[in-house]
Amino acid sequence: MSLAAVLARLDRDLDTNARRLFDWLAIPSISTDRAYAGDVRRAAAHLVDDLRSMGFEAAARPTPGHPVVVGHRRRPGRPHVLFYGHYDVQPVDPLELWTNPPFEPRIVEIEPGRKAIVARGAADDKGQIMTFLEACRATIAETGDLPISLTVLVEGEEENGSINLPAFVEANRAELQADLALVCDTGMWDRGRPQITSSLRGLLYEEIIVRAADRDLHSGHFGGTAQNPIHILARIIASLHDAGGRVAVPHFYEGVHETGANRLAQWEALGLTEADFLGTVGLKFAAGEKDRTLIEKIQARPTCDCNGIWGGYTGEGTKTVIPGEARAKVSFRLVHDQDPQAIQQNFRAFVAAQIPPDCSVEFIGYKGSRAVQVREDSPELRKAVAALKEEWGVEPVVLGHGGSIPIVGDFKRVLDLDALLIGWGLDDDRIHSPNEKYDLANFHKGQRSWARIIDALGT
Amino acid sequence: MSLAAVLARLDRDLDTNARRLFDWLAIPSISTDRAYAGDVRRAAAHLVDDLRSMGFEAAARPTPGHPVVVGHRRRPGRPHVLFYGHYDVQPVDPLELWTNPPFEPRIVEIEPGRKAIVARGAADDKGQIMTFLEACRATIAETGDLPISLTVLVEGEEENGSINLPAFVEANRAELQADLALVCDTGMWDRGRPQITSSLRGLLYEEIIVRAADRDLHSGHFGGTAQNPIHILARIIASLHDAGGRVAVPHFYEGVHETGANRLAQWEALGLTEADFLGTVGLKFAAGEKDRTLIEKIQARPTCDCNGIWGGYTGEGTKTVIPGEARAKVSFRLVHDQDPQAIQQNFRAFVAAQIPPDCSVEFIGYKGSRAVQVREDSPELRKAVAALKEEWGVEPVVLGHGGSIPIVGDFKRVLDLDALLIGWGLDDDRIHSPNEKYDLANFHKGQRSWARIIDALGT
Repeated sequence: MSLAAVLARLDRDLDTNARRLFDWLAIPSISTDRAYAGDVRRAAAHLVDDLRSMGFEAAARPTPGHPVVVGHRRRPGRPHVLFYGHYDVQPVDPLELWTNPPFEPRIVEIEPGRKAIVARGAADDKGQIMTFLEACRATIAETGDLPISLTVLVEGEEENGSINLPAFVEANRAELQADLALVCDTGMWDRGRPQITSSLRGLLYEEIIVRAADRDLHSGHFGGTAQNPIHILARIIASLHDAGGRVAVPHFYEGVHETGANRLAQWEALGLTEADFLGTVGLKFAAGEKDRTLIEKIQARPTCDCNGIWGGYTGEGTKTVIPGEARAKVSFRLVHDQDPQAIQQNFRAFVAAQIPPDCSVEFIGYKGSRAVQVREDSPELRKAVAALKEEWGVEPVVLGHGGSIPIVGDFKRVLDLDALLIGWGLDDDRIHSPNEKYDLANFHKGQRSWARIIDALGT
Repeated sequence: MSLAAVLARLDRDLDTNARRLFDWLAIPSISTDRAYAGDVRRAAAHLVDDLRSMGFEAAARPTPGHPVVVGHRRRPGRPHVLFYGHYDVQPVDPLELWTNPPFEPRIVEIEPGRKAIVARGAADDKGQIMTFLEACRATIAETGDLPISLTVLVEGEEENGSINLPAFVEANRAELQADLALVCDTGMWDRGRPQITSSLRGLLYEEIIVRAADRDLHSGHFGGTAQNPIHILARIIASLHDAGGRVAVPHFYEGVHETGANRLAQWEALGLTEADFLGTVGLKFAAGEKDRTLIEKIQARPTCDCNGIWGGYTGEGTKTVIPGEARAKVSFRLVHDQDPQAIQQNFRAFVAAQIPPDCSVEFIGYKGSRAVQVREDSPELRKAVAALKEEWGVEPVVLGHGGSIPIVGDFKRVLDLDALLIGWGLDDDRIHSPNEKYDLANFHKGQRSWARIIDALGT
């Protein structure tokens, strides 16, 4: 059986594969710092060479920023998979908190019997990319080919907001056409249980500017007679949620689907408590909607948060000012079929109705993206679940993620592509922080998992 | 009649008196800028010399900051008046907006038939002080003495928060003992009608810090489950007023007296409209308590304003953060017998009751001062009203002021001294701004008014 041979090769080649990853990790491809632009190009070229060595037709493609690496290994008639990752990394400050230099990767025993690769990019995202590519390399070596048609798309600006990627995808729409996207920038439920991220929340981000008097006023003279824009804004923010914790913007819940009892029961069985989830950040009790379970709130319910508020005097000491304006930033996380445009309209009308007649409001609209939902009845999802169960011996968790990965929305919008989000990150990986690490076991079993998934997708 | 002679002398000497004021205005006594410390001392010495030339026992008295000028012209057995003013001035930036150099005073015709002295300090407060002292000088010249015992207290740090004056008053309590304080740092109702300020509001100033998670959180991960301190704070600020505009802190209105119908009718007769009062700052409709008249709200009702609020991300663009804390500064203007200590306690309890069990609140208390009320049945007030009516031909307005002049509270607290607040400032004097001015007519008729008041107080 060829899959067994592939898995055996991955077991044998673990050290070799780790050293190959080390060579790439040693290139400081920090995308947000112009000083590293040459290193970013070098990291792209390194990947192109590696892809070519595996038989890919690959190139570093120019953008107005850092290049995008695209590689194809076509197998006409087979399912076509688009794999996405990013080869750029976060800055490394504060450098003095690193135990080892961030671009001198090494294997460290972080607790008895548990080894990890420590370096910037170990988990986010070079390590995750190589986990997938080693599975491909072993499959090709043992079987002579991949059972799927594969396009690899690896950008160099994810840590800088993927600013040039959507335009690149638009411009290369025909070339990037596929049947399914694989996204590896995610994590496991815990060290023993893999996770398939089945949804990502959408996002609507708005700034509100409430204006009253045409200048700052002295509260001794005008207190009690002039409108105070901070009061108006505070009432608006306070009115965004009702007493039950629901978002009070009219029609906000249109397009939100109820989670089935079975699915809720599965989530409950995971046993995540409020104390576990919130205790890590110094809180105890879940806020938000009163009649929803914790996991449901995290990933299947929409939310609204004020992310910033400011107005008046914010320095040391006192100033008795009634400011002329006050501002707030408000974002909504969206799920299922919620329509960001409709919510933006309803939100703005809801706010405007609370503005006194001699005051005014201005809105700045930043972002609107729909939620991304993986079809739970898709054959690809079922194949991935079975492959993961085979490798790990437990049922994988199929769970939404509360955040947003905008490129997944772009794949859907531009390429009409559903995504399967599978990754081997852990909560303690310290991505974006000093001493970023990637468990060696995850690197290893992640390769084996991908080999199984690739095999399953090809049949 | 000797008062007639005093008034005639003031008419004759107007040019001479203006030139004398010019000499003092030419000294740039900017108290908040160390570079001008020598000029501040020079301005104090200038005043000491002038007081001595009028027969005062006077000296510039040291403080940890700029000196306080104290002068006595005692007349045992006569009513003892303590006159307060300040010889320091505001900075002059932006200098390029001044039509004339700020310390080269001159008389400018600001509209046909209306002349004004233009210089930094012309109105605030050197011009006001000299308006009073010229009345004293003319009275002494024509009658050989003042009909009252007079202590002059002129500080050099009013524009720097009078930081050393309360301690100075405490330390010289016996020397400064008097029967009545005269404070000249106020204004007229309009160019034709003088005003006696009958009350000043007290002040309570608090900062609230609401803390939730022990770090900033990502709203994708924690939105909808973690407490957002901005939401908590917004609800608190929104809860400070009820739907009728009343302050909702329990027991807040204890000690607030209802204004009598007669007094309300007098205020209404002044004909101040919401459009007049608020139109100058771009507003139209009075906010605040729904069932109160405009003037009542300005000066006889307590208020609450949020003077500053901040939390989360306040820069350009977007950040989906749930901050660990949010802050606000809240001040209360107090009237009549409201007790700042009791209100502070009730306010803090009111806020604390709205904090979720896994969050916390901290308070920073800055200031608490009671309102100052002039006894409306006092013989001094009646004498001043009659004197002003005689000079101006109209009934003076007796009206509270919405702001606070802390030293007036200190006079009451330390010296048990009631104050009479009379001044000749106008709303268009541009104090603290470029091209500060003082109407020549106000300088002139102000001197005549003080001569009449001094005469009346002495009998």
